Amino acid sequence: MADADRIREVADHVRRCRNRGDQVVLVVSAMGKETDVLLRLANEVSKTQPGREMDLLITAGERKACALVAMALTDVGVPSASFTGSQAGFLTDTNHRNAKILEINPTRIRDAIDEGMVPIVAGSQGVSADKDVTFLGRGGSDTTAVALASVLDADSCELYTDVSGVFTTDPRVVQNARKMPTISFDEMLEMTAVGCPKPVMRSVEVAQRFRVPLHVRSAFTWEPGTLVIEEDPNMEQAIVTAVVPDTSEAKVTVCGVPDRPGIAAGLFRALADAEVNVDMIVQNVSDEGVTDISFTVPTEQTADAARIAGEKIEDEDCTVETDESIGRVSVVGAGMKSNPGVAATMFETLAANDINIEMISTSAIRISCVVRADDVDKATQVLHDAFELGV
Amino acid sequence: MADADRIREVADHVRRCRNRGDQVVLVVSAMGKETDVLLRLANEVSKTQPGREMDLLITAGERKACALVAMALTDVGVPSASFTGSQAGFLTDTNHRNAKILEINPTRIRDAIDEGMVPIVAGSQGVSADKDVTFLGRGGSDTTAVALASVLDADSCELYTDVSGVFTTDPRVVQNARKMPTISFDEMLEMTAVGCPKPVMRSVEVAQRFRVPLHVRSAFTWEPGTLVIEEDPNMEQAIVTAVVPDTSEAKVTVCGVPDRPGIAAGLFRALADAEVNVDMIVQNVSDEGVTDISFTVPTEQTADAARIAGEKIEDEDCTVETDESIGRVSVVGAGMKSNPGVAATMFETLAANDINIEMISTSAIRISCVVRADDVDKATQVLHDAFELGV
Repeated sequence: MADADRIREVADHVRRCRNRGDQVVLVVSAMGKETDVLLRLANEVSKTQPGREMDLLITAGERKACALVAMALTDVGVPSASFTGSQAGFLTDTNHRNAKILEINPTRIRDAIDEGMVPIVAGSQGVSADKDVTFLGRGGSDTTAVALASVLDADSCELYTDVSGVFTTDPRVVQNARKMPTISFDEMLEMTAVGCPKPVMRSVEVAQRFRVPLHVRSAFTWEPGTLVIEEDPNMEQAIVTAVVPDTSEAKVTVCGVPDRPGIAAGLFRALADAEVNVDMIVQNVSDEGVTDISFTVPTEQTADAARIAGEKIEDEDCTVETDESIGRVSVVGAGMKSNPGVAATMFETLAANDINIEMISTSAIRISCVVRADDVDKATQVLHDAFELGV
Repeated sequence: MADADRIREVADHVRRCRNRGDQVVLVVSAMGKETDVLLRLANEVSKTQPGREMDLLITAGERKACALVAMALTDVGVPSASFTGSQAGFLTDTNHRNAKILEINPTRIRDAIDEGMVPIVAGSQGVSADKDVTFLGRGGSDTTAVALASVLDADSCELYTDVSGVFTTDPRVVQNARKMPTISFDEMLEMTAVGCPKPVMRSVEVAQRFRVPLHVRSAFTWEPGTLVIEEDPNMEQAIVTAVVPDTSEAKVTVCGVPDRPGIAAGLFRALADAEVNVDMIVQNVSDEGVTDISFTVPTEQTADAARIAGEKIEDEDCTVETDESIGRVSVVGAGMKSNPGVAATMFETLAANDINIEMISTSAIRISCVVRADDVDKATQVLHDAFELGV
């Protein structure tokens, strides 16, 4: 919610849902860029930024939004009441800035529903056993919503996002991308893992774990979006569901790594300790006792990753190369498991269009290829056509 | 605190106080104009503005400031921890937007002090018996500070304001105004009652009730300010301590009011019900069964007051007049009680300077005169000279 107008629109939408007979519980995140503003303020004030204080600071954003939505609902005649994370019964561990929910005791939320009210819950927050305010991390409001939907036995959890649903590919890249009415949790997780934007992966994982159907929809058009549900084993599965482009990563290659046990382990442990988000990892077969290891990291971590890799292997006769001009295109589909021809079709399609594949990585229901960044859009388009995903 | 720089200055000041051997507990209010910004947002979103939601919204400001100060202190090596109103043990009634403190259980604050920490407490907030967030009202952070100083048995409560202390008169009006090293609670209350700016009256009342010495000082220069203490009966009292100008009010006069019991009562009850802040009230002796009643109200409430007065006396042969071009000048002094000549000196001084007195009202230690608004500065200057208050 960016401003007062948006808050009133949300209130109006809730009123309509309620008039259709739905019981509604609302979870709100902070308004617009407020969380960014608060983080900037903390950077100006403090280098140490103790987690306990950061959490008190950041959770203020959700609390404000929560109060404003409750007011706006009262204005349109919908009885409602705000609840902070603590009031909503979210008990968490003491891992500040990224707390985990330990238990939810939503007594006050249930009471409010029973009284015919719409409870408005401040997202991404809870209270620890030390009675301190805790923050569930960026995007934690989605987690709050899913967890609450689960514990309240809700029919579904609607995530209002800036996209109108989950598409067969990025509609900005491919004109005839198609919005999917449903998608399985597994496919959704693979898509978010390779760069499909919202909702954040953690909320999808939580929804899958608690079997809460997710409805990913637009907060701007209010049209029905995509239902994320458990795979129906009786349903015939599309072989390929979606093509996901991603240009947010860079490639780091360590050349001439001695083929001895423990070298790669030491390298990736050092990267993990430095909180570098390593994504794809590819190691080729050894050639005369040395090998090349390539991996991808978020572009902004490229320099860090290269420095750490360099330090880790400085005693060896290795070189580290980085390449920020790469991109990735992935095809995702639950039906892939029983259809071994997908990889072949993917590679043939890319080759036929003169697109060179630099790295390959696969999971049971996903195949990802690293290509030149300039080729990502074209690759997405031709794969989308090849697997006949368009409207 | 307006910005990050100010927060770091506050942290530095606390560090110095601590190095001098003081045990410090800090109470913080919201940053700069944040409370105004939040109120404006609420106005954009809602007409109803339920009190419970308003309190959740507004208290976010103090919480943010609290977290930021705690971070800044950690940065300068002072162990500190933030505490919300609830964590600091402020239990209040459920009178949202203007809650009263019922009880303070500062266990966590005491523990933090015992551990050598500086507790940072979010001002103007508490938790009600319904476990809802409550707001103590505008300026409530001063009240929080005074109440906490009392319950912790602090040596004094320092109020950091935008003035460097309490002056014999407004230094913007009179060049040689003098900062007073001490002033009694009674005098301070009379001064704030007639327009002397900070600290707010409520905190002075609370400080007097709990016998907490107040130190009114500047948050910008850090120099010692004015100590507000109990009157020492053995001390020789200055006859006049201060001259207070005030141009924030307007005069409403109801002419030709029948001299019957209950007329004035009905009028002021109606004004009170409409939350019009009536200040001075003057009624002259009756002349042939009718009288004039004049009273002052904040300028912005003039129209409301006139309308209500008009409705209340519409059956009578009365007229209502308003005058926004008035001002008030007051002399305050605890020694006045045993010195009946003060009023005479005041009236003579004003007369000698051609300043006409339109209304007079007195208390045991204050005399206020309403004059033309244009005359207020001159009246302040000549009275300040007449009572020899200058440097």
